Amino acid sequence: MNKPDLFVNTNAWKKLLKEIYKLNYKEFHLKNLVCQKNRLKLFSRQHCNLFFDFSKQRIDNLIFSYLIDMSEELNIKDKFSAMTKGAVVNVTENRPALHTAARDFSTSEIFITDKDNNRHNILLDIRGVNRKIKKFSGQVHDKTILSGSGKAFTDAVIIGIGGSYLGLSFIYNAMLSNYQTKLKLHFLSNVDIDDYAQTIQTVNPDTTLWIVISKSYTTIETMANLNQVLLHLQKSNISPEKQLITITSKGSPGDNPEDPVLESFHMFDFIGGRYSATSAVGGVPLSLAFGYDVFEQFLKGAHEMDLYAACSDNGENIPLIAALLNVFNSNALGYKANGIIPYSSALAKLPSHIQQLSMESLGKSVTTCNEFLDYSTGSIIFGEPGTNAQHSFFQLAHQGMAFPIEFIGVINPGYKGECSQFKGVYNHQELWANMLSQAHSLAAGKNSSDNARHFPGDRPSSTLIIQDLTAENIGKLLSFYEAKTVFEGFILNINPFDQFGVELGKFNAQDIRKEIVSKNQNSQYKIQNIDDTSKFYLKLLFNKKIIKP
Amino acid sequence: MNKPDLFVNTNAWKKLLKEIYKLNYKEFHLKNLVCQKNRLKLFSRQHCNLFFDFSKQRIDNLIFSYLIDMSEELNIKDKFSAMTKGAVVNVTENRPALHTAARDFSTSEIFITDKDNNRHNILLDIRGVNRKIKKFSGQVHDKTILSGSGKAFTDAVIIGIGGSYLGLSFIYNAMLSNYQTKLKLHFLSNVDIDDYAQTIQTVNPDTTLWIVISKSYTTIETMANLNQVLLHLQKSNISPEKQLITITSKGSPGDNPEDPVLESFHMFDFIGGRYSATSAVGGVPLSLAFGYDVFEQFLKGAHEMDLYAACSDNGENIPLIAALLNVFNSNALGYKANGIIPYSSALAKLPSHIQQLSMESLGKSVTTCNEFLDYSTGSIIFGEPGTNAQHSFFQLAHQGMAFPIEFIGVINPGYKGECSQFKGVYNHQELWANMLSQAHSLAAGKNSSDNARHFPGDRPSSTLIIQDLTAENIGKLLSFYEAKTVFEGFILNINPFDQFGVELGKFNAQDIRKEIVSKNQNSQYKIQNIDDTSKFYLKLLFNKKIIKP
Repeated sequence: MNKPDLFVNTNAWKKLLKEIYKLNYKEFHLKNLVCQKNRLKLFSRQHCNLFFDFSKQRIDNLIFSYLIDMSEELNIKDKFSAMTKGAVVNVTENRPALHTAARDFSTSEIFITDKDNNRHNILLDIRGVNRKIKKFSGQVHDKTILSGSGKAFTDAVIIGIGGSYLGLSFIYNAMLSNYQTKLKLHFLSNVDIDDYAQTIQTVNPDTTLWIVISKSYTTIETMANLNQVLLHLQKSNISPEKQLITITSKGSPGDNPEDPVLESFHMFDFIGGRYSATSAVGGVPLSLAFGYDVFEQFLKGAHEMDLYAACSDNGENIPLIAALLNVFNSNALGYKANGIIPYSSALAKLPSHIQQLSMESLGKSVTTCNEFLDYSTGSIIFGEPGTNAQHSFFQLAHQGMAFPIEFIGVINPGYKGECSQFKGVYNHQELWANMLSQAHSLAAGKNSSDNARHFPGDRPSSTLIIQDLTAENIGKLLSFYEAKTVFEGFILNINPFDQFGVELGKFNAQDIRKEIVSKNQNSQYKIQNIDDTSKFYLKLLFNKKIIKP
Repeated sequence: MNKPDLFVNTNAWKKLLKEIYKLNYKEFHLKNLVCQKNRLKLFSRQHCNLFFDFSKQRIDNLIFSYLIDMSEELNIKDKFSAMTKGAVVNVTENRPALHTAARDFSTSEIFITDKDNNRHNILLDIRGVNRKIKKFSGQVHDKTILSGSGKAFTDAVIIGIGGSYLGLSFIYNAMLSNYQTKLKLHFLSNVDIDDYAQTIQTVNPDTTLWIVISKSYTTIETMANLNQVLLHLQKSNISPEKQLITITSKGSPGDNPEDPVLESFHMFDFIGGRYSATSAVGGVPLSLAFGYDVFEQFLKGAHEMDLYAACSDNGENIPLIAALLNVFNSNALGYKANGIIPYSSALAKLPSHIQQLSMESLGKSVTTCNEFLDYSTGSIIFGEPGTNAQHSFFQLAHQGMAFPIEFIGVINPGYKGECSQFKGVYNHQELWANMLSQAHSLAAGKNSSDNARHFPGDRPSSTLIIQDLTAENIGKLLSFYEAKTVFEGFILNINPFDQFGVELGKFNAQDIRKEIVSKNQNSQYKIQNIDDTSKFYLKLLFNKKIIKP
């Protein structure tokens, strides 16, 4: 493989850095930039039902054109396109990254060779899983499939963590604003026994379906929770064959005919956890909750955004532009964090999903050639819905350390009932008045003779507007963030699909766990083989109280 | 007033900065520091039921002693003590900050002069409110007070935002792990109409109590939601006199006998929103949910921590040490963010509360003398519960940009039922194994010949251990974070009690709102008087679809 260019070595980036000096000039303050005629027209892009406004970023025509040039020098779009066709973009794990295939409705074929050396058109495999999801969810809804005691299912509990939880939870909550549930979903993710206790209190065992999601079916937290749930089912005389389903790799311990469950659905190793919401991971629960048709609309929206990300010109490409701006903000301007602020309570869980998607994909220290890098990769992603965020941390956003913000607005809310006005304004309008005002205030600032009331402004933001939260548009939103993250990884020349950074903690936990097992087996056992501090903490845990070190 | 010393001008801080060079030395890498004998003993402190371990911070004896010296040079503890006695520490708003008085069980007196020029012992005022809470919640529980249709109340919806929401929501969720609810609480905070729609779907109007929390009773979001709720109650033939209560300032529009409600409880202007969880803001909902006795235990825990924060030696004082370490991490070592990771799903909402408490209190740009400052004040606070966070953003924590983390462990979970073992380990033990392993791995790192699997380590963390989540200990935890935040504000010589940074956004929203009102009144109205971008967005909103700029 030829050593790919680093973005910091491109001509475009070098030229861009020579332009940065002007950001200190008065006329380059955002309060002046945003007044320029046609600024919004120049620095916004629209693609059906999605509008992206980056007119409040600290750029001008020249800087923007260098960013686009850079993406062309780096052939970013080709890489993206190759990814969607099965190129081995996950170089450290030697496999493709084919989340886009999970919603590929085209007639194309994508062949890959599996570990048994068989070649598959994976689009057929994926469509097979989706047909199974359609059939199964339909049978649950038409009451062909009933619980062990012959009742219709009313609830489903998802046992899964990380990528088997966060994306799904965001989408489920977003859809709740526009769709009636056929089954209600609940999530059991944390291995904390109190998470289990809360879940059990919430659902009726006789009408609840349990859905275990784990690619390897060895994820410790998920298996420990499953174990605890099985104890609970046993006590209620409920058989897993009647009320438990699994979403897992073909041939994993969760896909073992000797350990029968109601149904199993396959996930594939070419789709990573944080990119898996359009696979069976999202497909089974969302189809159960809202019907397979809704899930399919969601897939279609995601697919449309994929095509657009792969095909539209660099200078028109919303996810690519958003990615370039992030690289610019962190590497040219030095910002360390990004706020994601959806002005929509239905999108309350979006920031947590993006937090994982972005920080796990981009928080890397080596290039794809396995060399240490010396530029900024991932940044801190955090957020809360607006207007709540305004009443929480916006003090710091306005007068403390600056960080770029992504505002998200939804034109049409889900609620269609009667609305009251307060002081002549509907609630949804109030929400928008606040969103617009915040973006403007952060950019423009305000001088005051009282220093405590002085607002420096010049704080960048983008605004993403979505028509409404139909399944199709939620699919586009999901795919937008996936594409943006992948583009960022490609620009930074890192692998956005691996996550070796989580291995050390898992590895060290094994040693601690071993000591716990020995002590559980023999209360006289003296804990050893781990660091002194961990030893001390295990003493607290076994003594059930705080003692002195 | 004498101009107070800035921490950057203290002798101790200057000496400390001279010691920083050694952090680059090999022997100062945390993997070596944490192996030092007695390190944990030296750098941990315990106060009944709370244990604070800062042995994994990048300090040695000398640096630590300079930090303590600095706090003495600055007379930080005297300031804190003066605050609890009613000193006017909120200088920009010319009033005291007396959240500690809300749980002051001592026999002392705190006199302040109200706006009508009457002198009050505010402890008596506060105790009067608490007696009223006790009586009212008792009458709801013993069914002396019933709903409009004569039914017992089963649910309460809190209408409030920011400080009238986040702290209470954290405490309610934490208590759920150990206490049975007498009434279930729900929260309606966001002005988003979809938040209202979700809430209405959840509760039965006949058995639901509505609790409006707003000091001024003019908070736009809260009033708009109340308005929408009143429409809903009217349709269900429910009178506010029967099912609505208010928590507000004496004499506010929510405390108006001509607009009768079931009951009103007072809050005081000497307690700011983000510090108000121990006032009636927390008192009424928590007493309804769990009983007044539980609320009182919670107050007692908070009071005990207040006394400890005000009285214990600087070198022993857990919240003060935690505050000094934050100032050290951001101003000497340059960290820009802090992770709060409770290994407890019951504390899932703690990070959002601390996010507000800390970022709103400390995200300031002027000193208490109203001079611009040139050192770091607040930092980004974010977090998710462990182990969930490990499966989300810990990739970046280990191999991307470093940031200090505060781990929180609970020795005894709330759940007392039967537990299964998975591979010889109980779920709660698994949780701890992970927490210990993460703190150790972040500090120690691990060398690897494969760069992608190299962990640099040297990433600082503290660990806070709490005995269990009884009301008393939750009170201590709350008060610990309040005291830590106040100490940080005092060290940084900023006002942690005002929030002028949120005013500009509110102010600019008025202009946008005015245009909306005009357009609502007359659909032919041409929007004007606001910036062009906001104009464009209002066009989208009124047309209900995306159009080109």
